[in-house]
Amino acid sequence: MGKPKRICLLLLRLLALGSTLSAAIVMAASHEEARFFSLSFEAKYTHTPAFKYFVIANAIASVYGFFVLFLPAESLLWRLVLCFDVILTMLLTSSIAAALAVAQIGKNGNSYAGWLPICDQVASYCRQVSGALALGLLGLLVYFLLLLYSLHSLLDPLLLKKT
Amino acid sequence: MGKPKRICLLLLRLLALGSTLSAAIVMAASHEEARFFSLSFEAKYTHTPAFKYFVIANAIASVYGFFVLFLPAESLLWRLVLCFDVILTMLLTSSIAAALAVAQIGKNGNSYAGWLPICDQVASYCRQVSGALALGLLGLLVYFLLLLYSLHSLLDPLLLKKT
Repeated sequence: MGKPKRICLLLLRLLALGSTLSAAIVMAASHEEARFFSLSFEAKYTHTPAFKYFVIANAIASVYGFFVLFLPAESLLWRLVLCFDVILTMLLTSSIAAALAVAQIGKNGNSYAGWLPICDQVASYCRQVSGALALGLLGLLVYFLLLLYSLHSLLDPLLLKKT
Repeated sequence: MGKPKRICLLLLRLLALGSTLSAAIVMAASHEEARFFSLSFEAKYTHTPAFKYFVIANAIASVYGFFVLFLPAESLLWRLVLCFDVILTMLLTSSIAAALAVAQIGKNGNSYAGWLPICDQVASYCRQVSGALALGLLGLLVYFLLLLYSLHSLLDPLLLKKT
């Protein structure tokens, strides 16, 4: 593998690490206290199982992404890393899909089920959650690109090279 | 690749096709009309974006799974199939995660957001959705196994063979 390629992959992994870490932090820090006449209520991520799962999944991805940075380029373990990348991409996909589904209900509600949108009451909380979701999506996209690149370089699925 | 292995993989693909197809059908057929005093309301999958996405994702997986059955075992296209398997597994993961997140709110509600559970009113609808989710999970599990097997046989990530 050439040096520019290796640096490019390292930068991608750094970007993925940054995205997942900041997604977890932004979601974990999202918080708003709203007042409704004399009632006060609090919106935070622990109130929604899907958001808790999002934080946990992105934290796991960050820890994994951190340790992979120190793996030497010549290591044969990169093949194992590809398998872990697949599992991690699935984990991130599921966490983002679940959080997006709940955020969609929070934004638009679901009139058939009688669930009212809550983003009008806790607008700043909703913005923080949206930011976390965008960061999570960026991280997922980078992992997906890394995965496609690994598969491409290891398997040559498009049969570009003559055998 | 030996014949028993090939038959085993074919059976797994058949199982995956059966699961995703039946998951899409059960979810699309899920439907209940409930009466609440003089009010009557209807629960069906089109009322929830996450459930619509679930049906579409499983339908795509079924069409793909059907065509892959006819690919000859010697074809070099199996490497491309591995890439598509990765993408499909991600698609199924996201659809199931989103549907599960909404179903969880439907079952338990979310007291902080003021969303009431609806499964007491439309119990049979909830059972049908749960069945569809279980079938979808089975399909996802089979695709995940196929993926791990493909990666294992193509890459030998655990470095079991001497090079």
